[in-house]
Amino acid sequence: MADTIFAKILAGEIPADFVHQDELCVAFQDIAPQAPVHILVIPRKPLTSLHVAAQEDGELLGHMLRICSKVAGSAGLAEDGYRVVTNIGEDGGQAVEHLHFHVLGGRSLTWPPG
Amino acid sequence: MADTIFAKILAGEIPADFVHQDELCVAFQDIAPQAPVHILVIPRKPLTSLHVAAQEDGELLGHMLRICSKVAGSAGLAEDGYRVVTNIGEDGGQAVEHLHFHVLGGRSLTWPPG
Repeated sequence: MADTIFAKILAGEIPADFVHQDELCVAFQDIAPQAPVHILVIPRKPLTSLHVAAQEDGELLGHMLRICSKVAGSAGLAEDGYRVVTNIGEDGGQAVEHLHFHVLGGRSLTWPPG
Repeated sequence: MADTIFAKILAGEIPADFVHQDELCVAFQDIAPQAPVHILVIPRKPLTSLHVAAQEDGELLGHMLRICSKVAGSAGLAEDGYRVVTNIGEDGGQAVEHLHFHVLGGRSLTWPPG
């Protein structure tokens, strides 16, 4: 596991604007927002990406998706909607080698998604 | 639950090019692909979107994400990477009111994701 910026945020070594924290994951504002609402949800467990998640991580993954939905609701996106994205590897555009879900909303997201 | 095109695919009333089927979910080729690989993963359970998934659905959600990863691997995307997307509501660009994950790859996905 590389010592990523997300590992440093989890360790409290770099500040973040948290909107959710629990025993399995945390959520905070993306520092380079691509929409009026742009929140990241990351696991405390240092999974490199979705691609390396094992069967034992299924519960964690499901929990993280529900937290995506929860923080979207708290950000006022329940009625108008939002998009949840995770990038894997170079073609996916993955910028940090620590699993993270992007929650984007507050504008009409276009298609294709990148 | 509206009688969506996905409900009809699950019922066998409309054909689809399946790449995975199990007791919880199925995966098939998107009929309007936005990338060289564009697969949809949908649950058999008729959840309208991620936003309505309850705690009891956590295991299902985690399973579906792992199937996204599995079908991406089977499509040859493990090395170069891919993107997984789910749309919720109008701003998210949700086209069918049945939860679905898009798995996109085979080209470099751009940023922002829509």
